[in-house]
Amino acid sequence: MSMLADLLATVFERRYRGAEAADRHNRSIEDMCHDLLGGSGEVSGMALARLILDSYAAKQDAEKVAFFSFLTNRMGVDPEAVRHTLEAYETAPDRATYRDFLAASEPPRQEVARRLNQVPGATAQLVAMRADLLRLSRDTPALAVLDLDFKHLFASWFNRGFLVLRPINWSSPADILEKIIAYEAVHAIDSWEDLRRRLAPQDRRCFGFFHPAMPDEPLIFVEVALSRGIPGTIHDVLSEDRAVIGAHQADTAVFYSISNCQEGLAGISFGNSLIKQVVADLSQELPGLKTFVTLSPIPALIRWLAENGALLPKEPEARRALTAVFLLEAKRPDGTPYDPVARFHLGNGASIHAIHADADLSSNGQTQSGGVMVNYLYDLARISQNHERFVGSGRIAASPEVKALAAAGKRTD
Amino acid sequence: MSMLADLLATVFERRYRGAEAADRHNRSIEDMCHDLLGGSGEVSGMALARLILDSYAAKQDAEKVAFFSFLTNRMGVDPEAVRHTLEAYETAPDRATYRDFLAASEPPRQEVARRLNQVPGATAQLVAMRADLLRLSRDTPALAVLDLDFKHLFASWFNRGFLVLRPINWSSPADILEKIIAYEAVHAIDSWEDLRRRLAPQDRRCFGFFHPAMPDEPLIFVEVALSRGIPGTIHDVLSEDRAVIGAHQADTAVFYSISNCQEGLAGISFGNSLIKQVVADLSQELPGLKTFVTLSPIPALIRWLAENGALLPKEPEARRALTAVFLLEAKRPDGTPYDPVARFHLGNGASIHAIHADADLSSNGQTQSGGVMVNYLYDLARISQNHERFVGSGRIAASPEVKALAAAGKRTD
Amino acid sequence: MSMLADLLATVFERRYRGAEAADRHNRSIEDMCHDLLGGSGEVSGMALARLILDSYAAKQDAEKVAFFSFLTNRMGVDPEAVRHTLEAYETAPDRATYRDFLAASEPPRQEVARRLNQVPGATAQLVAMRADLLRLSRDTPALAVLDLDFKHLFASWFNRGFLVLRPINWSSPADILEKIIAYEAVHAIDSWEDLRRRLAPQDRRCFGFFHPAMPDEPLIFVEVALSRGIPGTIHDVLSEDRAVIGAHQADTAVFYSISNCQEGLAGISFGNSLIKQVVADLSQELPGLKTFVTLSPIPALIRWLAENGALLPKEPEARRALTAVFLLEAKRPDGTPYDPVARFHLGNGASIHAIHADADLSSNGQTQSGGVMVNYLYDLARISQNHERFVGSGRIAASPEVKALAAAGKRTD
Amino acid sequence: MSMLADLLATVFERRYRGAEAADRHNRSIEDMCHDLLGGSGEVSGMALARLILDSYAAKQDAEKVAFFSFLTNRMGVDPEAVRHTLEAYETAPDRATYRDFLAASEPPRQEVARRLNQVPGATAQLVAMRADLLRLSRDTPALAVLDLDFKHLFASWFNRGFLVLRPINWSSPADILEKIIAYEAVHAIDSWEDLRRRLAPQDRRCFGFFHPAMPDEPLIFVEVALSRGIPGTIHDVLSEDRAVIGAHQADTAVFYSISNCQEGLAGISFGNSLIKQVVADLSQELPGLKTFVTLSPIPALIRWLAENGALLPKEPEARRALTAVFLLEAKRPDGTPYDPVARFHLGNGASIHAIHADADLSSNGQTQSGGVMVNYLYDLARISQNHERFVGSGRIAASPEVKALAAAGKRTD
Repeated sequence: MSMLADLLATVFERRYRGAEAADRHNRSIEDMCHDLLGGSGEVSGMALARLILDSYAAKQDAEKVAFFSFLTNRMGVDPEAVRHTLEAYETAPDRATYRDFLAASEPPRQEVARRLNQVPGATAQLVAMRADLLRLSRDTPALAVLDLDFKHLFASWFNRGFLVLRPINWSSPADILEKIIAYEAVHAIDSWEDLRRRLAPQDRRCFGFFHPAMPDEPLIFVEVALSRGIPGTIHDVLSEDRAVIGAHQADTAVFYSISNCQEGLAGISFGNSLIKQVVADLSQELPGLKTFVTLSPIPALIRWLAENGALLPKEPEARRALTAVFLLEAKRPDGTPYDPVARFHLGNGASIHAIHADADLSSNGQTQSGGVMVNYLYDLARISQNHERFVGSGRIAASPEVKALAAAGKRTD
Repeated sequence: MSMLADLLATVFERRYRGAEAADRHNRSIEDMCHDLLGGSGEVSGMALARLILDSYAAKQDAEKVAFFSFLTNRMGVDPEAVRHTLEAYETAPDRATYRDFLAASEPPRQEVARRLNQVPGATAQLVAMRADLLRLSRDTPALAVLDLDFKHLFASWFNRGFLVLRPINWSSPADILEKIIAYEAVHAIDSWEDLRRRLAPQDRRCFGFFHPAMPDEPLIFVEVALSRGIPGTIHDVLSEDRAVIGAHQADTAVFYSISNCQEGLAGISFGNSLIKQVVADLSQELPGLKTFVTLSPIPALIRWLAENGALLPKEPEARRALTAVFLLEAKRPDGTPYDPVARFHLGNGASIHAIHADADLSSNGQTQSGGVMVNYLYDLARISQNHERFVGSGRIAASPEVKALAAAGKRTD
Repeated sequence: MSMLADLLATVFERRYRGAEAADRHNRSIEDMCHDLLGGSGEVSGMALARLILDSYAAKQDAEKVAFFSFLTNRMGVDPEAVRHTLEAYETAPDRATYRDFLAASEPPRQEVARRLNQVPGATAQLVAMRADLLRLSRDTPALAVLDLDFKHLFASWFNRGFLVLRPINWSSPADILEKIIAYEAVHAIDSWEDLRRRLAPQDRRCFGFFHPAMPDEPLIFVEVALSRGIPGTIHDVLSEDRAVIGAHQADTAVFYSISNCQEGLAGISFGNSLIKQVVADLSQELPGLKTFVTLSPIPALIRWLAENGALLPKEPEARRALTAVFLLEAKRPDGTPYDPVARFHLGNGASIHAIHADADLSSNGQTQSGGVMVNYLYDLARISQNHERFVGSGRIAASPEVKALAAAGKRTD
Repeated sequence: MSMLADLLATVFERRYRGAEAADRHNRSIEDMCHDLLGGSGEVSGMALARLILDSYAAKQDAEKVAFFSFLTNRMGVDPEAVRHTLEAYETAPDRATYRDFLAASEPPRQEVARRLNQVPGATAQLVAMRADLLRLSRDTPALAVLDLDFKHLFASWFNRGFLVLRPINWSSPADILEKIIAYEAVHAIDSWEDLRRRLAPQDRRCFGFFHPAMPDEPLIFVEVALSRGIPGTIHDVLSEDRAVIGAHQADTAVFYSISNCQEGLAGISFGNSLIKQVVADLSQELPGLKTFVTLSPIPALIRWLAENGALLPKEPEARRALTAVFLLEAKRPDGTPYDPVARFHLGNGASIHAIHADADLSSNGQTQSGGVMVNYLYDLARISQNHERFVGSGRIAASPEVKALAAAGKRTD
């Protein structure tokens, strides 16, 4: 494909590229965006789109902010046109008036993005553009509006129906594996040797979602350990010395790390589908698997304690009890769990299964949660009911043991 | 994938499918669409989406019309909400007000379609749904509004950047080839033997665009003959007795048939990109190719003559001349060429290269154009200029020979 | 690969091809074979090999016979050299003397074949060469010697470890499917429509062995029907009107047709491995399958009766009984079953399970066996035991019902 | 495949594996080899073959020597039978007598190897077995005879016509890439980062030959640098700081490392074909490439000087001259070049193009050749002629510059 793409560039873009060489000072990226929307550029659209993407890629941050401001301010909806076409549609609702209303109520910058996306490889570039936007809009809040247009488009393009689940293993291409090393966000991968230990043994699995237009870029991936019983520490899972077991001997699948890979896809949720599909996939392949569980960090525990002027107790049992209280009762103003990982898994229909002290001895684990970790359980028979109770009434599913721990914790308080 | 999909169905949908069995009379497809949009259905969304698609697939035409009417009337925009959120956004343009406006100005039925699309295989079902809609809205014009929402979504989903060009040849899967037989719209393919003659020889090529979510369904395909010189009759191209030449001996590529395959994608244009990419592809593979040309029907010639009370002359030369006049001068009210095939190729930047009498002896060819055919030339050096002149000022590019023919034709008039 | 192969031809063979054009009358295929073995041709070996294969392909039958005679008479072992090197090896058995003995005791024509096989595509050409040899040696028995060298090489090249089992279905490439139509040897496939009925429904399967060097050529394939219960007529299996069932509803897999594809691989046995691997494959995919059985013709029944001056009885029960006697008791001079299909399946460890009258109404079925067919049962628990008793003592495994039939048949006799 | 293979093991081997568990002390690997050849084991052959391979894999070196001795002494040819069948064949040369002679003159251990090869994965195990044999026969020269049988079989199985050329790049599977790191024999690869520098840039290529039955194991690979002009030091090629160029800008392809991967395939030559096919492949892809050249070590230079009581001169020009003399004139007793790399490339038809002092500063390069390296030129127009003169009369092709250097070197002597 890429040779063809090159050739297309050569053949069709000569004219515009030539133009660019000549008129570099005359034609701004903003002018080119206007052209891209103009009818007369239709045949040359792909060449123009590539020029715009190239031009963007060469910009410094300040210029990018200027470009985003242009899209925000000059490529937004025209309120008058919206009102006008809406009235016409109300008066005489037919195909013509509705078309006019749809055209007026969608900002032209969405069509700009769709036309840029014609070029091979553009999808990844547009995702990177949104990553820039998210970063730069921290200092320029007026750009936040523009982000909603990207998010709207990406939610459509990265619809679950277009994603492909692929196993990632030691036979996967190196250029994908180096991204796994780079993107692992929970338990850092130190080296190719470390990666090999997570992918090659027969009791280790990894799966990722990919989009066909970005075949070399995982969107999200989950690392899975197959084990006998539920592990209580991350050391049990990652230790170099652990005994490898046969995949068919395992009764439990442990999701011990889930990482989103694309900052430009923030807010487009895949994790829910990923876990469910992996559960289905593994159940099919390994009928001996009876338990699907996470071994998860509790990233907000220490922060919450600090906000409440408390400290994590020294005694392991007390630490577990306090964590149980935290997970079951600490809430954000909107009533959802304070801890983001809890929010994610409980929102997916999982339940809090067990809490382990001294489960993560890494400095990161110590800083975030004093080494405490938690298993969330994915019990297929209860997942829908848990989810609906959680969404409907904020009820959090937990094992009797965890509930008892929390009760003990509150007595101590 | 399909085994997995089956399993997912088993595992996650049991509840809803069970529900369906029990409540079949209670829950309508309309109620399920409301649920699908409701927050509480998030985890069960995929199961619900499948139920809706299954329910749709089982409906008769009258029920489909009722469902489309529901989407048209009950899942459209709320003008009050649009006005209200627009005002709030104008007063205080920020992320929150813009989000509300975007939400209000997009009809909920678009989100319904996106959520249905989560299910494996749904994309093809939604395309089929639009084909139903186009058919049924002929008698129910009020549904035409709904079609614009489908079209808007499909233009985004079937963006050029997501399509894949694939060669179609005698090593292609039989289930794709049987669709080529079914979809060929210009010169019918009689049998597998006939198909073999169009795909297997080394001087024949075929290319199609595919979408990754519909991998077994060509969207559009073009059949190409490699030849020495430009053929003047379709018989030269399709005859069983013709002499096959080596691909490297050819100097000309003839696009002799382009067929759109999916009625549900009407109005989403791919042909322009397809021809250009195939030209690029073939140039790369076979540097000996110097000329890229069509051998095209003229479907509106006889109809136009009839509307003007004229007949096609008996004498071949006079027939060619009159056709030249027709192609260069007959226009629709909007100023574009009267003939749809001319409109397509001239709009792509091609020029009228040559006109042939007695070029198509089939009954279809006789009925449409008295057997006259035309070569449109794709000259890469002129394609952008031709296109812009055509779009800008309606100027039609033609060879001196064709212009001379037209001049002669007008003198005769 | 084939473009590369072309290029290699261009680049490296120019010299020899040029030579050929010039010296066509001077250099015989025999001389080129001598050159091919000579050390000095090593670098040009591939070019020379291609020339020899091209030259062979252009020959008439009489010339082929001459070439085979050359290989037989001039490229055989030299008895003196064998004796001489053998003595030297006996006197001083070391690497050098053994190498000399190995070199002397293998006829040079085997090395010729190995060197010809360097060329891309040569394997298929050599297989075709042996097919010619088998055909032509019917009239020239002296060539039968040469066939043993081909057979020896092919047994090594087409070793089970090098074969690949591939499913053949309606998504398989058309160029492979047209070979299935051509090679089906048991129940002829009339048309692509007929083929579709055998491959597309979910209760139909087909599997073939392929060799990596001949990826478009099936070596042997088996057609399988999934059913509830064991069918008693081929009409039940092939009827256009039959009800298709879900693959997971089936309890029985019926091997109703096994066809060898390559005459040039006669005597290289794959069928035994094919059936066993397909049984393993299907068991894995569809755990509901409990019975693996054939529905087989009895090609030698009528011939055997004729040789014994008997006729097949009119009464179905009597026909079944006589067939039981035939299958259990009719033997060749070497003590193995008279019927070749019985020989094959019983030799694989199957047992005679049931006999059906009026099971094949085709003219072929009537001619061979008066319409009688037989199920051979592949019971994995008994396959090794059956096989060893059959090989060791000629004992034929059969169901009690079949034994009772035979007993009744003999009483009638 | 491997799940199927597992299942086959389960299904068909239960009996033999059971037997093994029971009779472990009773049945030796030698007995099982006899059984494998016996007719009665045909159906159970695959299970038996796997048992033998497993049993072999578990053996210590001393036991392996015993097994190899068994094959050498008890599975060799029977001279009496050879003489007897040869006489019968001479007396009455027909199919039957020839079959007997072929059977008698091939040692049964070759058939043992072919039958072991039925098992999935066996080919790689047999290659490893020969690597063991080569290692162990250093101390047990009597085993050298057995090696010739392996070599004979492997020359047939790994025939050029069965090998597949595959590009190896940064998108290749990690499990293949880790073998490239392990097998690189010329310029060691330090790390994955180092490997990335050799594979990922667009001016770097790597190609390997693979056998379909060992798809994860490269047999031989060559690393190629694309450059402008011919590099004179390995530092130019491998430096981390070098400027990467576009592939289409290169005019020269430099083969700077060729590594054989499989000790068990020693003596089976692939290098000649590999270089020629890569030249053809690159010429096709990059028509701008005009020069194909190696940058090669001279591993025997210092050793040869030492044997002749000489030292490499300090002065670079003198060092180059002496190297030219060495490459053109130093010979082994059989008249071929003393240096093995020279022998390989000159035997392939290359010529000595240029000699560089201070070209390899690594300790290995200093030890072998005092840092001198050489370019061998692959000029397609001369390759056959060079080869034939080299083989026929020992003439070594060299550039005028190299010849002049040698002349100067001899004057100095």
